[in-house]
Amino acid sequence: MHRFFLPPENIGKSRVRFPAETAHQIHAVLRLRPGHEVIVLNNGGQAFRVRLEDIRPAAVTGIILDEIPLTGEPKTHLTLFIGLTQREKFEWVLQKGTEVGVSAFIPLITRRTLVREIETAHNKQGRWQRIVQEAAEQCGRGRIPEVHLPLELPQALDYPWPGPTLRLVAWENETQNGLRQILQHLPEQPQQVALMIGPEGGLSLDEITQAQEAGWVTCSLGTRILRMETAAIVGAALTLHELGDL
Amino acid sequence: MHRFFLPPENIGKSRVRFPAETAHQIHAVLRLRPGHEVIVLNNGGQAFRVRLEDIRPAAVTGIILDEIPLTGEPKTHLTLFIGLTQREKFEWVLQKGTEVGVSAFIPLITRRTLVREIETAHNKQGRWQRIVQEAAEQCGRGRIPEVHLPLELPQALDYPWPGPTLRLVAWENETQNGLRQILQHLPEQPQQVALMIGPEGGLSLDEITQAQEAGWVTCSLGTRILRMETAAIVGAALTLHELGDL
Repeated sequence: MHRFFLPPENIGKSRVRFPAETAHQIHAVLRLRPGHEVIVLNNGGQAFRVRLEDIRPAAVTGIILDEIPLTGEPKTHLTLFIGLTQREKFEWVLQKGTEVGVSAFIPLITRRTLVREIETAHNKQGRWQRIVQEAAEQCGRGRIPEVHLPLELPQALDYPWPGPTLRLVAWENETQNGLRQILQHLPEQPQQVALMIGPEGGLSLDEITQAQEAGWVTCSLGTRILRMETAAIVGAALTLHELGDL
Repeated sequence: MHRFFLPPENIGKSRVRFPAETAHQIHAVLRLRPGHEVIVLNNGGQAFRVRLEDIRPAAVTGIILDEIPLTGEPKTHLTLFIGLTQREKFEWVLQKGTEVGVSAFIPLITRRTLVREIETAHNKQGRWQRIVQEAAEQCGRGRIPEVHLPLELPQALDYPWPGPTLRLVAWENETQNGLRQILQHLPEQPQQVALMIGPEGGLSLDEITQAQEAGWVTCSLGTRILRMETAAIVGAALTLHELGDL
């Protein structure tokens, strides 16, 4: 069934009103008709089964049939720090990362990061947010992941976490600590996990040292050298898998 | 250090001769110079440290310094059956799948497969093989994965395996059997594993039934609906991860 995240103000007690953009998608792209059922999410942890009622090019309304349980949203809040890179690759990580279960993306700027202009990132914010929303709707997430503005490494390392957070940084020279070793020997299931993936050139040795001094744990993603985008998706998937949250 | 797979006939007892294409890459692209060291692999399980000697545009030779241990090659032989699809997406799976540790790729044609012409696949064979070789050199594999010609589902289901093979088919309606449940309760570590990922539209119910009747085990890749290319990479990574082979 098609799923749509709607702004809370569009969701009433018994009826929903789809915004123009979504209405166009329903009417012209998906060609849904009155009587068709869809799922509406409020991005606040609720999902509703909705029967489409009135369908016009720019205005669609529906009747809420019932609230349905939210599935597809991991318990663990996983934040992925990923080196800012060329558009295609970065947007690909946003899409796949959302499918895999990442809850927040923070573009990272390090010494070897290819793309450095924070300004352009500002302009891309809207496009990035649309990519993760669409992916979240497609793969069955209960909430839309957040895409933050880029951070330089020092700010990223000292990120002000709301609560206790397990902070992992993938490092190709880490041969001892695999994700399983780390995640299966925790005193308790972490509520929040941060995973940092360096840029194409990797993090430099002293950047890794800075991370360790800031309390980040270096981890291995296996014996093979993964490209940054592969490391991001595989690392996120393995983390949630090990926490029983994939 | 740069790594190159060479045909066995180019690797002598004490010297190696790089084929024209590789020679061009070394000379013009990577701009390596005499005295530089590279790693040469024979795709037969051996790797050698080689010092470049004579470098010309179309002919490069090197001296074998010593044989070095092969790392980066999984013990488990994982065959990935993946629905034939549009070029970019398919080649992306070849590249990432090689990084993750897939040993053989078999393009699959099912009822809902988007791309169906086996002929075009014939022409692409060479290009596909170059993609996996380059990825294998980059990520540190010891062998080049094989890319087979496409198979229709019935042939794929009855594939003549050389030995006992655990055959898994990812299915979105499988809610009980996760990869961990399956892989952690095996009598012994499987030498060969096959993982089948359906096309964009998924496998039909009776295609799944055919698979089960042929002895394939349906498995879940988690609660979220992954796109086929994401399912292929995440499924392959989790399989090797669970077998301690990533």
